[in-house]
Amino acid sequence: MKQVSLLGATGSIGIQTLEVIRLHPEQFSLYAMAFGRNIEKALPLIREFKPTIIVVQDEATKVKLNKEIDHQQVFCGGEGLIEASIADSVDVVVNAVMGSVGLPATLKAIQAKKIIAIANKETLVTAGHLVMEEARKHQVELLPVDSEHSAIYQSLNGEKKSDIQKLIITASGGSFRDKSREELAGVSVQDALNHPNWSMGAKITVDSASMMNKGLEVIEAHWLFDVPYEQIHVILHRESVIHSMVEYVDRNIIAQLGTPDMKVPIQYALTYPERLDLPITEHLNLEDIATLNFERMDMERFPCLRMAFEAGKAGGSMPTVLNAANEEAVQLFLEGKISFLDIEKYIEQALENHDRIHNPDLSTIISIDEETRKSVRFHLN
Amino acid sequence: MKQVSLLGATGSIGIQTLEVIRLHPEQFSLYAMAFGRNIEKALPLIREFKPTIIVVQDEATKVKLNKEIDHQQVFCGGEGLIEASIADSVDVVVNAVMGSVGLPATLKAIQAKKIIAIANKETLVTAGHLVMEEARKHQVELLPVDSEHSAIYQSLNGEKKSDIQKLIITASGGSFRDKSREELAGVSVQDALNHPNWSMGAKITVDSASMMNKGLEVIEAHWLFDVPYEQIHVILHRESVIHSMVEYVDRNIIAQLGTPDMKVPIQYALTYPERLDLPITEHLNLEDIATLNFERMDMERFPCLRMAFEAGKAGGSMPTVLNAANEEAVQLFLEGKISFLDIEKYIEQALENHDRIHNPDLSTIISIDEETRKSVRFHLN
Repeated sequence: MKQVSLLGATGSIGIQTLEVIRLHPEQFSLYAMAFGRNIEKALPLIREFKPTIIVVQDEATKVKLNKEIDHQQVFCGGEGLIEASIADSVDVVVNAVMGSVGLPATLKAIQAKKIIAIANKETLVTAGHLVMEEARKHQVELLPVDSEHSAIYQSLNGEKKSDIQKLIITASGGSFRDKSREELAGVSVQDALNHPNWSMGAKITVDSASMMNKGLEVIEAHWLFDVPYEQIHVILHRESVIHSMVEYVDRNIIAQLGTPDMKVPIQYALTYPERLDLPITEHLNLEDIATLNFERMDMERFPCLRMAFEAGKAGGSMPTVLNAANEEAVQLFLEGKISFLDIEKYIEQALENHDRIHNPDLSTIISIDEETRKSVRFHLN
Repeated sequence: MKQVSLLGATGSIGIQTLEVIRLHPEQFSLYAMAFGRNIEKALPLIREFKPTIIVVQDEATKVKLNKEIDHQQVFCGGEGLIEASIADSVDVVVNAVMGSVGLPATLKAIQAKKIIAIANKETLVTAGHLVMEEARKHQVELLPVDSEHSAIYQSLNGEKKSDIQKLIITASGGSFRDKSREELAGVSVQDALNHPNWSMGAKITVDSASMMNKGLEVIEAHWLFDVPYEQIHVILHRESVIHSMVEYVDRNIIAQLGTPDMKVPIQYALTYPERLDLPITEHLNLEDIATLNFERMDMERFPCLRMAFEAGKAGGSMPTVLNAANEEAVQLFLEGKISFLDIEKYIEQALENHDRIHNPDLSTIISIDEETRKSVRFHLN
């Protein structure tokens, strides 16, 4: 029986993680659960899974929650996320919070030698060198929940990293893959949230439309698999059937394929190195799909992907700036305050205005993150 | 340094094995080499690779060869194949002879605990239970050279067999994939030998056109991977890019992809569990290929595949009959004595006329093989 701590329980990954836990009551139990402010969504889950520890975003939410339930251990904010990550009984921490707020809890969970199922890619983008250094030091393995990284992880099973020729990350192209740069000028929030293949949260769906999601994944893959950016290749694959691939030095390519269902990589991260039946997910039927398409990725068409590669290669504090500027710009877009194409402009400006710091420590990263967010908001005014 | 014994050196797999050996003189050396009667093709290879042991098909060829070269150890026929397989210095036996004649040498090589790279699928089709029993007893692993089985082998790396949901074997469809049953009546030997994707020997190219090759591969996969026929699925995939796949119980599918170049699985079998650079083979470029297609396999259109599944499921001596009747009928077709569609008729007749023997031993298999061949020839007259 694995005791799970789920950070981000009411989000898309959180809800699907609970579906997997519900399916295997012999294997998993929910020990801790963190969510933001959505009490309405959280209450039935608390009643069903009866977590020992509950974490909410702030004191106000805690007060409201305490009116609904009688629960001994309700914690708040970043400190609460850490409590939920390091509790003695916890075996696996599923980090599915959105944005770089997940970073300190991840670092503490690694120090506490928990298994980390990482859905929070911003953690690795903003501070990959710190996270991986801690993981190496404490001999903790990070299990990816992103479908692309789960595919690469599985394609590396039983293989040696020194035999990797390159990683090939597939991209569906997002909501706007068939729009020209000109057409992108007028797109709405609603358009951006309409992803063709995957059902996901708002931020990641906008990131998919701008191709920044793929850029963040490239940086995440660089850190998770210790592969230089020159050996990471992105390819457009509309059907999202091949979730990613590894080419080896002897020309063999190993790939993972499946239906676009996040429960598959979530369960894999929870059960690894075992596999369990997953009856709630359809089998992939290639005869019905009939055709898989592949296209070259156009870096001019998708400047966010180009900027992510550049920030990744530059290293140091540049990915922190990329990520913070993107989080803030996407938020402004979702609030209707800037246009879709403004997102990339704001990020480009933030990167240009930043003087790279080599090997930043955690407090430096946190302050650069805050400054970058402020400067993006400032430019708006 | 691995010392290689190559059975079937002048055939398509043999020549490509020598290309791989030539590429890695630090890793491999040719200790023994067996061929049939093609002295002209063999002589430059003997002069280049200087094998210690040479095996030819018969005394007449040995006499002819001895006029050309001064060589101490030239052996003949089946006994010679065994000599070449069990010699003390040999580490790996690449069994690339054509047809069930490769069986006794394979069994002896297993008993001598050699690594077996098996390109001779007829060995496993005709006597899979005996070969695998010996392999288990002597803890010898059979490394597949067939591209489909190499794909499955690689897709199983680091995985547990109990987690397999099914094997998915891809089929290009062979030379006649776009012909109707009616059009097949008039096809010539030359038509059959014109395979759209792979460059292979005559027998296997005809087997590809009749889809018997896929049937033999299904039986081979059953034995190699110990998976019941109900969990082996064949899918039409014209581009031969995905060479085969394994679906696991958790809906994840792992696949191997590559260019259609036999040197890739040959080298993998020789280097396993290592991988080595293979600069003479192109990298797969999915952006250039652009589209992969998948279609349901039609068992009515391809009765040889249906018969192979049936013979495999029936078990006992049935696969021996299937294989012997096919080898003989293909030979008659290549000699211009029967039509393409006669091949399946001869096989069906042979299967119908045979009373299944449960768990046949080697001498029973050899005598059933001979009787079946005779009866196919007899029906012709």
